[in-house]
Amino acid sequence: MSASTYKQLEQEFRRLHAFRGALSLLRWDAAVMMPRGSADVRGDQLAALETEHHALLTAPRITRLLDRAQANTQGLADWQVANLREMRRQRDHAIATPVSLISRLTKAASRAEAHWLEARQQGKFELFAPHLEEVVHLVRDKAALLGQALNLPQYDALVDEFSPGITTADIDAMFKSLSRRLPSLIRESIAVQETRPLLPLSGKFPASKQRALSVEIMKAIGFPFERGRLDESEHPFTEGVPGDIRVTTRFDPNDLFSGLLGALHETGHAMYDLGLPQDWRDQPVGRDRGMALEESQSLLIEMIICRSRPFVRYLKPLLEKHFAVSGPEWDIENLYSHLTTVRRSLIRVDADELTYPAHVMLRYELEKQLLSGELAVKDLSAAWNAGMEQRLGIKPANDMEGCLQDIHWAVGSFGYFPSYALGGVIAAQLYESLRADVPELDDQISRGEFSGMFDWLRTNVHGVGAKVTVHELMKAATGKGLSATSFVRYAETKYLEGTANSVAA
Amino acid sequence: MSASTYKQLEQEFRRLHAFRGALSLLRWDAAVMMPRGSADVRGDQLAALETEHHALLTAPRITRLLDRAQANTQGLADWQVANLREMRRQRDHAIATPVSLISRLTKAASRAEAHWLEARQQGKFELFAPHLEEVVHLVRDKAALLGQALNLPQYDALVDEFSPGITTADIDAMFKSLSRRLPSLIRESIAVQETRPLLPLSGKFPASKQRALSVEIMKAIGFPFERGRLDESEHPFTEGVPGDIRVTTRFDPNDLFSGLLGALHETGHAMYDLGLPQDWRDQPVGRDRGMALEESQSLLIEMIICRSRPFVRYLKPLLEKHFAVSGPEWDIENLYSHLTTVRRSLIRVDADELTYPAHVMLRYELEKQLLSGELAVKDLSAAWNAGMEQRLGIKPANDMEGCLQDIHWAVGSFGYFPSYALGGVIAAQLYESLRADVPELDDQISRGEFSGMFDWLRTNVHGVGAKVTVHELMKAATGKGLSATSFVRYAETKYLEGTANSVAA
Repeated sequence: MSASTYKQLEQEFRRLHAFRGALSLLRWDAAVMMPRGSADVRGDQLAALETEHHALLTAPRITRLLDRAQANTQGLADWQVANLREMRRQRDHAIATPVSLISRLTKAASRAEAHWLEARQQGKFELFAPHLEEVVHLVRDKAALLGQALNLPQYDALVDEFSPGITTADIDAMFKSLSRRLPSLIRESIAVQETRPLLPLSGKFPASKQRALSVEIMKAIGFPFERGRLDESEHPFTEGVPGDIRVTTRFDPNDLFSGLLGALHETGHAMYDLGLPQDWRDQPVGRDRGMALEESQSLLIEMIICRSRPFVRYLKPLLEKHFAVSGPEWDIENLYSHLTTVRRSLIRVDADELTYPAHVMLRYELEKQLLSGELAVKDLSAAWNAGMEQRLGIKPANDMEGCLQDIHWAVGSFGYFPSYALGGVIAAQLYESLRADVPELDDQISRGEFSGMFDWLRTNVHGVGAKVTVHELMKAATGKGLSATSFVRYAETKYLEGTANSVAA
Repeated sequence: MSASTYKQLEQEFRRLHAFRGALSLLRWDAAVMMPRGSADVRGDQLAALETEHHALLTAPRITRLLDRAQANTQGLADWQVANLREMRRQRDHAIATPVSLISRLTKAASRAEAHWLEARQQGKFELFAPHLEEVVHLVRDKAALLGQALNLPQYDALVDEFSPGITTADIDAMFKSLSRRLPSLIRESIAVQETRPLLPLSGKFPASKQRALSVEIMKAIGFPFERGRLDESEHPFTEGVPGDIRVTTRFDPNDLFSGLLGALHETGHAMYDLGLPQDWRDQPVGRDRGMALEESQSLLIEMIICRSRPFVRYLKPLLEKHFAVSGPEWDIENLYSHLTTVRRSLIRVDADELTYPAHVMLRYELEKQLLSGELAVKDLSAAWNAGMEQRLGIKPANDMEGCLQDIHWAVGSFGYFPSYALGGVIAAQLYESLRADVPELDDQISRGEFSGMFDWLRTNVHGVGAKVTVHELMKAATGKGLSATSFVRYAETKYLEGTANSVAA
């Protein structure tokens, strides 16, 4: 009986998976291909499909089937039981927020996004403030409903949407460790790098050649171009589903690395998605284990692997081939210095891995205060600037490089920011175990061989899907609970090498 | 009461419109952007959305609302009453064919299409035959159900899906007129053109330059690139919705005209869609009036306007600009001769406007016989070849240039072919009235001005949407019922000019 009930649920969620794939393609097209004037048409299409997806997921039939299947799971395999749990999780999240609230939030976010763009153009936060105010109110309502339904504190409920199983306590513990060491580490790293010469990498690097280089490296990494694409968009992103995965980047002819690293960051996401358990790819248990783990996979590639000496050894001849460059500035040490420069800067997406957590902690603190009402939207700009000064010792000259730089709050994504910093921490912890288990890793990478790394990641991370929690996954993969210890160790080793504080690699 | 019922229906159909737009984008992407290996993923997405669209359209709620609204239409405007009629039409068509049959047909068509491709590659009809057999059986079932529900003969019910209001009697009458005059007209036209010299247009015409030329002409015609795209695909097509319209073509560097004319043909479709009544664009009454009228708009542009001397006068300097060509072969008369050559040939999509109807009539006859069982699938190839010999006096050397050339039957599109020939007939009839109402048309076209033509078409064709039947539309636009008289007159004037049979232009 339960087996057939279970099968019906799989069928229902297969359909929901197809809906999500269609939605993802519509978003990809909007950012990459769609004519500029067609946003209204696409908005209607997305809203219609999203509403229908919500209606299908929250239909009484799903609840009935879930109740029946979960009441007696005898005869089901553990993957199937985990699948039921993830089905329930999706349904619980969806049913907690009524369509009317989602719809109001979608519309308010759409207005806020437009005014955010305008406020950026005119450099006037006050154009954006009333619309952000509206979004904050609606997100607060949503957090209250979600918290009640999931039996979680309100902010935790928002985090749980993006990174299931991660709590405010986890985040606070992590951020406390990072805060203890990073400020001094940044200072020391900058002091170390100031003792090294840095020759500029000047020249013009045409987008078409940057693309050819990116494609060659993505192929070496294993990105399947027969089932995926690389395109250009305003900001790099990954959309699609395993089976048709689409990554984007943005090439700047004056900057050799930003487009390539954007593409490799997104390739990290894509490789995670492609490594998810094949047998479960259209089921909830076959999905990624949330944004913190997603971000760990992109940061592991972009920040740890691709900003390492072994990778630069692989990269150097490729640069010579694609751009016909030569001279001392193209030596491995100089390239490596460029890829690992630490700098206190104002824009999060351009930040290095040591200053990045400070950007995230500021947003984490501010968004919690906005939601609790402790901070009024009208005071956000001042609070932001004070926070930047306190955390990194620099101050935005205007809101464009301050509280207007990110789109997240405009579109209602509260609770998302922590996953960026958690991703870095998780990446370093996984990397430590990966290095221990694959001792020949450096040699492989310097030859452009990535299969050793991905074999390990498939076994320990990708292939697990959403079968276990992040905490369980990390424990199984690394033998340790989630903590910032590895990240600090990794950062000290990398950025203080040759100094007294350095730990042997 | 009825007003609010009506409003609820509008809301429901707005959602269905968004679904269809999403489906259209998924198809566009599959043909233009999608990686080759991702067809299975896309198939699942299309099936999920189509099934849901069908479920929403056939829900008891829609029927209830329609019954109530149509029982008392007092207080509704005539557009609203027509909208109810079109809603009912869509619902009746959908509900007549159960989801299980649609699903079986979709799967059989998907298999048949794959085997059609393989049969073409290997030149073996017998690889395709059993799969076509299966499709024919299922289409026969569908025609029976549709015919019963719509109270129409079975083949008429299939035609009605593509070209509402067109009957077998209409088609037979039209084809009888054409059969009476076309064979001799083809003979005479070929005789006339043999008296004229034809200098070859040789050279290489790079796709990028052909694209630039196509874009320039499309802009002159009024194609809105801020809400539309031109791309390349295996076969030209138009997808999308007004507000985000996407046309494709295929550029052959050895052929100056095929890519351009493909793009202009599709631009004709796009301009029709863009001219549909703005206020009703997400409602059934705001849709095109079926495929025969759609095809009339693409053929009017491609065959009548763009293969005319005024257009060639506009085109000549553009060819000189984009391809830096010169010499006597680029004179207006020689270009015009190339664009109006009549030739008995085997491939429908390459046929000129005089031989084209013969291709369609053959398919019309054969598909009716296949459905009635009069012709067995195994005998199709022989029947095809005999029919070609009888109608055009030429015989395919193999099935690739015979009964395997079109995809339509493989994917279950029976009843579609007549709309191609009807489109030509409707185009000529509209053109006759357009010329009478816009006497300065030729001068405008030779200057690259298309607004006079499109103003007329908006008023008389595009802006009418689906408010009236094709027959009513033609009567209002041309003062005459639908007939092949104008087409024959147009063809005689164009192809026999300077001979005794010619009628003054």
